[in-house]
Amino acid sequence: MRSTATLLVALAAAVLGSQADAYDQLVEKQVFEMGAYTTVGGQTIPDVRIGWEAYGTLNDAHDNVILVTHFFSGTSHAAGRYAEDDAAPGYWDAIIGPGLPLDTDRYYVISSDTLVNLNANDPMVTTTGPASINPATGEPWGMDFPIVTIEDFVHVQKALLDSLGIDRLHAVMGASMGSLQALEWAATYPEMVERVIPVIPAGQADAWLIAWLDLWGAPIMLDPNWNGGDYYGGEPPLAGLTLALELVTLQARHPIWADATFGRNWAADGADPAADFDNRYAVEAWLADAGSARAAVADANHFLYLVKANQLFVAGHDGSLEEGLAHIQAPVLLLPAASDLLLMPYMARAVRDGLMDREAPVDYLELEGTLGHIDGIAVIGQAGDAIRAFLEQ
Amino acid sequence: MRSTATLLVALAAAVLGSQADAYDQLVEKQVFEMGAYTTVGGQTIPDVRIGWEAYGTLNDAHDNVILVTHFFSGTSHAAGRYAEDDAAPGYWDAIIGPGLPLDTDRYYVISSDTLVNLNANDPMVTTTGPASINPATGEPWGMDFPIVTIEDFVHVQKALLDSLGIDRLHAVMGASMGSLQALEWAATYPEMVERVIPVIPAGQADAWLIAWLDLWGAPIMLDPNWNGGDYYGGEPPLAGLTLALELVTLQARHPIWADATFGRNWAADGADPAADFDNRYAVEAWLADAGSARAAVADANHFLYLVKANQLFVAGHDGSLEEGLAHIQAPVLLLPAASDLLLMPYMARAVRDGLMDREAPVDYLELEGTLGHIDGIAVIGQAGDAIRAFLEQ
Repeated sequence: MRSTATLLVALAAAVLGSQADAYDQLVEKQVFEMGAYTTVGGQTIPDVRIGWEAYGTLNDAHDNVILVTHFFSGTSHAAGRYAEDDAAPGYWDAIIGPGLPLDTDRYYVISSDTLVNLNANDPMVTTTGPASINPATGEPWGMDFPIVTIEDFVHVQKALLDSLGIDRLHAVMGASMGSLQALEWAATYPEMVERVIPVIPAGQADAWLIAWLDLWGAPIMLDPNWNGGDYYGGEPPLAGLTLALELVTLQARHPIWADATFGRNWAADGADPAADFDNRYAVEAWLADAGSARAAVADANHFLYLVKANQLFVAGHDGSLEEGLAHIQAPVLLLPAASDLLLMPYMARAVRDGLMDREAPVDYLELEGTLGHIDGIAVIGQAGDAIRAFLEQ
Repeated sequence: MRSTATLLVALAAAVLGSQADAYDQLVEKQVFEMGAYTTVGGQTIPDVRIGWEAYGTLNDAHDNVILVTHFFSGTSHAAGRYAEDDAAPGYWDAIIGPGLPLDTDRYYVISSDTLVNLNANDPMVTTTGPASINPATGEPWGMDFPIVTIEDFVHVQKALLDSLGIDRLHAVMGASMGSLQALEWAATYPEMVERVIPVIPAGQADAWLIAWLDLWGAPIMLDPNWNGGDYYGGEPPLAGLTLALELVTLQARHPIWADATFGRNWAADGADPAADFDNRYAVEAWLADAGSARAAVADANHFLYLVKANQLFVAGHDGSLEEGLAHIQAPVLLLPAASDLLLMPYMARAVRDGLMDREAPVDYLELEGTLGHIDGIAVIGQAGDAIRAFLEQ
């Protein structure tokens, strides 16, 4: 329940505006180099480099840190702008900034690119994965890159935080695959994590999610340009990657949004879909454009490694979900989206129920919207009061 | 609500067994040849042939006919067996037979393969589509086959019924794409159709369905063997078709089923999915096998033509859904599945609400299950009493 005080704070913030606004300083992308990293599976990756950025100021006690972990197709760009004319500000600008729930006047909010980040060809992303050069051969790793897990993502983030002298986290918060990392953090480093906010979350990849991830990646391997992952000297499997990203894009949306936005409109006047196979509906054209735009900065092998990492996920990587949840000591605020068709709310409820069975502290609030999974980004502001209160408790 | 009398009938049927049982006579597949058919789009297809079968006896008045229309990946094999050892009996054996809701002691239940039926390579299926020989060239049509719609499917079924001297239908009933045909029948031939039972239905392809259909077909065109649809002399695009059918298969299911059936089990003992990209989870192996089995008798171009026909569908093909529904005079019994993630119940409710707005007679009953879309087949027996009563009213 909202307290009156919380409502007044929110009201004041809305009225004062400048006291609660998107992060207003230019964001600097930085690169963390950690030398060799040995995966949980026992394979060593030399020259690991990941990008990161932060908003706010690290206090002297180094105890005001909130780690934000990114989603499957995301990057560390959670807030702010790299330049005044940056066309793509941070995805959680609605909640990260001065006076906002992740208040950059109080907290040092940090976010890093994961290993095998999808957007390997985005100049603002630094990641290590199959598209990286294997120092042993001087060639891209391709499918020889070691299989990595969400736990490996977390270990690398831990090394980044170590390098900054940070040994406790006021909170870890992430959406979708970011929620997997947040829960993994809480299960793997319970002594470091004080609060967890998994958004549009899952506690494990269940059979349904494993199967969908499999089908997401399949078009890449169907594209002859994929060539077993060895395409770095030639044409990449762009058609397969585009279709993979169309699947991701659509499954993260919702019928209400689709019908309100496109209805049965044609893609082009005079080009009746009944007349020719090349004539499309507006929603088909939008989806193709969305897939193409995302594929332009993505790497197909990285996509496949992300599929694998997500399929392998069980919070804690310690057997069952129940066993993993048993490691978590921090209070948890779960924020599923009611309309989510990708990580449906039953997944958040499984985490909630597993924690409640242990009488562990857990709150649960469903975001209400019509966009499906991406309501975890689009309407996160709905949970602003709850997040603020949770961070202060 | 069930009446006591209905419950007693159901109870008696359960006790007596032989009075309410699956269709017990061997089913004979027949072929209807109609010569040339001109599509709604104005193109002429010579030598149209479709398979059909029937259960029960056509009465002298020819007024005891129930037409059953099949789903996207289905055939006319709605009930019974072709031989005593037939491994694949009819899909609605639970409701078609002596003493069953579609009582073959009373009704003549008939079902036909559609144009461009998916299973063109199933020896028990007869259909006309891109895999058929174009008499003008002596070669398979491929993508030169005319675009056809659900309305064309219905026109061909009408010609079949004409050939049998049937000019009224006690009812039309179909699941999924069969529901599209059922609604189209009621809108296109309102004077012939006395009752309509759309199961796991949709009144139109909305933007969401159009987009998913697009993605279902996309892997076929990504497969280099597709070759613009010209593969009949060589290797068919089996990998693309298999992936397409995996997408269909999964989307017609449900997480509860997936998790209860497979959990996070591995496909093979000792083959840890964390150890190798080739090591899979059980659900992935099941899905690949299901896709392969279905692809073995399917034709890839037929799949694409079905995608198009379904995308083009609005009941009545007369502008909006509202305009189409306005043509329907028959009472409608809508049977969506509560757990359906493919044609979600909102689609059935749109039809119900559109009919109620016109004060047209419509009943609505949600099937309860955990299989998703295919609950429209798997648990259809739940609606047995409702169907029986609807057919008698």
